[in-house]
Amino acid sequence: MIGHDPDRTYRAAVIGAGSGGLTLAIGLAGFGHDVVLIEGGRVGGDCTNVGCIPSKALLHAARSGIDDPLEWARAKRDDLAHREDEEMIEHEHIHLVRGWASLTGASDPHVVRVDDGGTTQLVRAEHVVIAGGSRPVTIDIDGVDTDQVVTNEGLFELESPPSGLLIVGGGATAIEMATAFAAIGTQVDLVEVQDRLLSSEDPLITEIVERSLRSQGVRLHLGATVERFDGATAHLSSGSIVEGADRVLMAIGRVPRLDGLELDLAGVGTTRTGIVADDWGRTSVDGIWAVGDITGTTLTSHGAGAIGRRTVRAISLPRVPKVGSVGVIPNVTYGEPEVASVGMSLAELATVAESSRRRVVVEHADVDRGYTDDIADGRLVVDAERFTGRVLRAAIVGPGATDLIGMFTIAIDNGIGLRKLFGTVHPYPSHAEIIRQAADDFTLATLSNLPRDWWAMARGRLGRVGRRHR
Amino acid sequence: MIGHDPDRTYRAAVIGAGSGGLTLAIGLAGFGHDVVLIEGGRVGGDCTNVGCIPSKALLHAARSGIDDPLEWARAKRDDLAHREDEEMIEHEHIHLVRGWASLTGASDPHVVRVDDGGTTQLVRAEHVVIAGGSRPVTIDIDGVDTDQVVTNEGLFELESPPSGLLIVGGGATAIEMATAFAAIGTQVDLVEVQDRLLSSEDPLITEIVERSLRSQGVRLHLGATVERFDGATAHLSSGSIVEGADRVLMAIGRVPRLDGLELDLAGVGTTRTGIVADDWGRTSVDGIWAVGDITGTTLTSHGAGAIGRRTVRAISLPRVPKVGSVGVIPNVTYGEPEVASVGMSLAELATVAESSRRRVVVEHADVDRGYTDDIADGRLVVDAERFTGRVLRAAIVGPGATDLIGMFTIAIDNGIGLRKLFGTVHPYPSHAEIIRQAADDFTLATLSNLPRDWWAMARGRLGRVGRRHR
Repeated sequence: MIGHDPDRTYRAAVIGAGSGGLTLAIGLAGFGHDVVLIEGGRVGGDCTNVGCIPSKALLHAARSGIDDPLEWARAKRDDLAHREDEEMIEHEHIHLVRGWASLTGASDPHVVRVDDGGTTQLVRAEHVVIAGGSRPVTIDIDGVDTDQVVTNEGLFELESPPSGLLIVGGGATAIEMATAFAAIGTQVDLVEVQDRLLSSEDPLITEIVERSLRSQGVRLHLGATVERFDGATAHLSSGSIVEGADRVLMAIGRVPRLDGLELDLAGVGTTRTGIVADDWGRTSVDGIWAVGDITGTTLTSHGAGAIGRRTVRAISLPRVPKVGSVGVIPNVTYGEPEVASVGMSLAELATVAESSRRRVVVEHADVDRGYTDDIADGRLVVDAERFTGRVLRAAIVGPGATDLIGMFTIAIDNGIGLRKLFGTVHPYPSHAEIIRQAADDFTLATLSNLPRDWWAMARGRLGRVGRRHR
Repeated sequence: MIGHDPDRTYRAAVIGAGSGGLTLAIGLAGFGHDVVLIEGGRVGGDCTNVGCIPSKALLHAARSGIDDPLEWARAKRDDLAHREDEEMIEHEHIHLVRGWASLTGASDPHVVRVDDGGTTQLVRAEHVVIAGGSRPVTIDIDGVDTDQVVTNEGLFELESPPSGLLIVGGGATAIEMATAFAAIGTQVDLVEVQDRLLSSEDPLITEIVERSLRSQGVRLHLGATVERFDGATAHLSSGSIVEGADRVLMAIGRVPRLDGLELDLAGVGTTRTGIVADDWGRTSVDGIWAVGDITGTTLTSHGAGAIGRRTVRAISLPRVPKVGSVGVIPNVTYGEPEVASVGMSLAELATVAESSRRRVVVEHADVDRGYTDDIADGRLVVDAERFTGRVLRAAIVGPGATDLIGMFTIAIDNGIGLRKLFGTVHPYPSHAEIIRQAADDFTLATLSNLPRDWWAMARGRLGRVGRRHR
């Protein structure tokens, strides 16, 4: 329902109605708790409104030959946002209050002030959950016209697609928007200071991303920065000139939306990357929780949702001890093809001695489904502990990557190594056979002709069989 | 290489070069063993030559607007088969012998006779692996012209697509061929004696298969049989008449290719469904093994491959004890959308008391990816043990079903229940979120407002957390 009773103390006040906040509101309401949900912008958060949902819709529209794809994507997005809005309004246990929230101080950290630009209201709650999200960073570029600059927040509000779009940055947002706008006929130039895209992924993955973007007509300017604009002409540090850049999309990173929350007043600890919170969303102040982008530990919708689900349990079942950590959280980029990875970061992986890990690379084209479906751009890279087969990190680029990665997520969460996955039967001909192939390659590589190695494997297998529980 | 030395005793003679036989030949050769591979027909087996590969290629051709899709699919199939053939010919440890094999008797069960229609040769080996596959069953129908009848073996050899195709049967082959031929413009009528398609799957799944086939223009005649043909006109038991059925595809089932093998001479035990063999491929005769369709225990390429891989290990590492059973083998149907299921059969599930299981149903449209991709035909059905969450059976119809099912295959193989999967983080927005949703629904359904139930869950969670190993 809309509105709340300022004299009542609710079970929770949730600040922000993105992925994290909605998870909290719906989850707590599902336990029968009354929740006040505070949102100054659109219900649904960035992903629904200005992120992967409209960019995926735009791609779908472009591929389906829809007439005004930008308008269609906007309508599709608005419809989903509207459904989420309605769901909140109709929920008997959720009280939607529109406005911007701030904490009111250490004397009572559980009172939240909400300002809608005119009036100010107070919300009292036993628990305050801060899920305010993040916003894109912008930088000044010499000679750029402020009207020319957009972030992902403004990109989908343009009346018509730009004829030329220069994207500054080479991460997930940059790639998703480059893919979507190239598909509807915009000339896309992407300028990235590093010498490759998506630097959080392995070069074996990103080279495929780069190749496929180029084949979609996106011009990549890697290892370059924009030095200045002269109208719609951009001069790059590499000496290249990009003409016809009507619009400039800033996609160089995100920062937590901390301003205005008055976290200091309430004594909530922060660092440069956001509010300090643990795997259950607990902050430095009892009864104040933080989930999602605002904590800086995850910048994905599903990451926010995952911590949010744990926070729901922590608030609803307070006597259940808070042990165990959140499962591994996959990273994804919705380009064409999709990219997904899970496990250690590349930096963490580098701390594992090379002699104690083994890498397996499988191309989609190596399995028959890749052949029947003519898949040139698809690859799986798995890094595993050499002797145990424990999966350290897995990354996939190719069709269905964001679904296929789930098998590695489950494997890592449950300590299932490649030697165990060797026994998993995948349908023929499915893309999942790349995972069987990786398990095969790993297992066969650890065999050699030396009887000693055979016996080591045999003993290992016996040990595992004994521990097997079905 | 081609040919063998009749005086030499090889490590293994493999009869049949389909999925099971190729797995054996390549696997044993990978261990450095010399293998004789005997095949009277095409290398690659039914799936590559007359099954899911050409039917998938046909679909791909139809969707891509290729001019002569049947010819294109045939070329694509021939190319893959040719590659597999070449791979066998070029392999230094594989000796390809073309012809039909038979055993030579109990006095020496490890001598195989090969007849190529003209000459007879003998092959001696320490191990004989029978992977001869299965063939489609045909029935007589009154008035049918024998030229009119095809099985999947002849379907792709037709010079041009039939204008009208009547399919007898409603299983995986019938659905795959109906989907593929409807896509290239053939009028398809499907006659199935049962009142629904794919009776090995739950009605909640098959109703979607039926709806999507109908929307593709396939006319379904369920609960009916063909009583007689009058030229291209079929008279059904329901009283319906199907006109223009130029061709009749028999797709009512498969039987093992036992004839000619002289299994009795060698003393190899059989039943009505095929050669009796265990999870390692062992038959009743020492040193004689059987894998794949010919055993009747699995009728899928990947099932044959899975047992074949174990047989490779059993032959190559004879001193490793044969403990542990094969992982669960998924069933799949490559229609549009795909169908996949894993775990107990419906009959096995029915033996579990209803009070001790709980069913969760999630529509693809319930998660945001289903919304952005406009997916009307997609559903997940999971049956789990009510108190433990152990997955008994999972079935998916929808895009990517044959990949998504892998998460349940891994879960069942490794004893990971829905309460554990509740903690797995899947990317947003991915189809995999149907699995998160199922785990959510299950976990929330097992909660109630009764404190007793909460505490039972809390204790359960505590117990699990303690056992967690990462």
